Amino acid sequence: MIRWLTVLSFVLIGAQPAVKKGPAAPPEAADGPAYTAEGQLKFPEDYREWVFLTSGLDMSYTPNAAAAKHSVFNNVFVNPSAYKVFVKTGTWPDGTMFMLENRGAEGNHSINTRGQTQAVEVTGTELHVKDSAHGGWAFYNFDEASRNPKGSALMIPKAATCYACHEQHAAVDTTFVQFYPTLLGVAKEKGSFSKEYLKEMEAPAAAAK
Amino acid sequence: MIRWLTVLSFVLIGAQPAVKKGPAAPPEAADGPAYTAEGQLKFPEDYREWVFLTSGLDMSYTPNAAAAKHSVFNNVFVNPSAYKVFVKTGTWPDGTMFMLENRGAEGNHSINTRGQTQAVEVTGTELHVKDSAHGGWAFYNFDEASRNPKGSALMIPKAATCYACHEQHAAVDTTFVQFYPTLLGVAKEKGSFSKEYLKEMEAPAAAAK
Repeated sequence: MIRWLTVLSFVLIGAQPAVKKGPAAPPEAADGPAYTAEGQLKFPEDYREWVFLTSGLDMSYTPNAAAAKHSVFNNVFVNPSAYKVFVKTGTWPDGTMFMLENRGAEGNHSINTRGQTQAVEVTGTELHVKDSAHGGWAFYNFDEASRNPKGSALMIPKAATCYACHEQHAAVDTTFVQFYPTLLGVAKEKGSFSKEYLKEMEAPAAAAK
Repeated sequence: MIRWLTVLSFVLIGAQPAVKKGPAAPPEAADGPAYTAEGQLKFPEDYREWVFLTSGLDMSYTPNAAAAKHSVFNNVFVNPSAYKVFVKTGTWPDGTMFMLENRGAEGNHSINTRGQTQAVEVTGTELHVKDSAHGGWAFYNFDEASRNPKGSALMIPKAATCYACHEQHAAVDTTFVQFYPTLLGVAKEKGSFSKEYLKEMEAPAAAAK
């Protein structure tokens, strides 16, 4: 559990930048974040209809990590309204939601004899949400262990290591755009790379230390 | 090139069922197939905003296939109007379009130290289209080699092995729904599995022979 939180979650989970509570209220996009009366984030049931950004297999940010015992794909989706803004501007608007869906990998499924395909079983879902009215960039874990029966989740405390990792290594505004092949060029063109990422690009050998 | 056509293309490419040219014209969905005056299929530039179905790594349908020299992810997308119909009915409407996007896999990218992530470079794109006015299920290859400067492609001849393979092994209507984790349950619930797939499920050991 801890490993999953601290390793796989790095793909999505953002560190908290200085929270900007400006005069502009979060846009009320239909696909934006929604909360319970108690302030828990509601699970976006339709996330599979969001815009797909990438899928990785058995990623790890830990140097010398052991091979995974069970291979896992991690699929990343973003809500369409935020995607449209990013394509135009290279930046994420208030109301941006990322979904990281972890799904088991299978070897010999149907007529596939090599490589890996995605299993029906979902092994974890996490959300990374930008909402100035709810703490800025925040991370919510919808694993079985933390998801309540109503399908909502509390924010992961900002002291979790995933926040710091995203702040230090993510390409754009604490999000790992370096792993989103169709958006990387947008960020480059719009000049929206973080100063931390630009520094890492200059000294890649030191990046994972 | 041949290998790619005959192996990777199996993921998407459908065999031609008896083409039903009934009284119903293909629906003119905004995200459906469009053709040049010469009858070539136009490349759908916005396919990355379609609904994502799955991503596999280094798949092969050839028994005892050698390991791939260069790892490749294959991402599958379907046009949203067709997806909505499938979720309700378990069947694909006229005007369905699948995109198979092949994308290089990278090992040590950014702070990722293990597993594979998706590269910026697209190494191939293929479309599988259901259009009763254009030959029923048909396959179009948009590789550099076959794509003309206007971004359109001729139909792959029906004699290609990919058609027969999809007809013999695909779970629903010549499409590999067995590799689309969120749709497999829909097909099961709606009872839309092909008789060929049901037979393979009974004797999985013989499936890849």
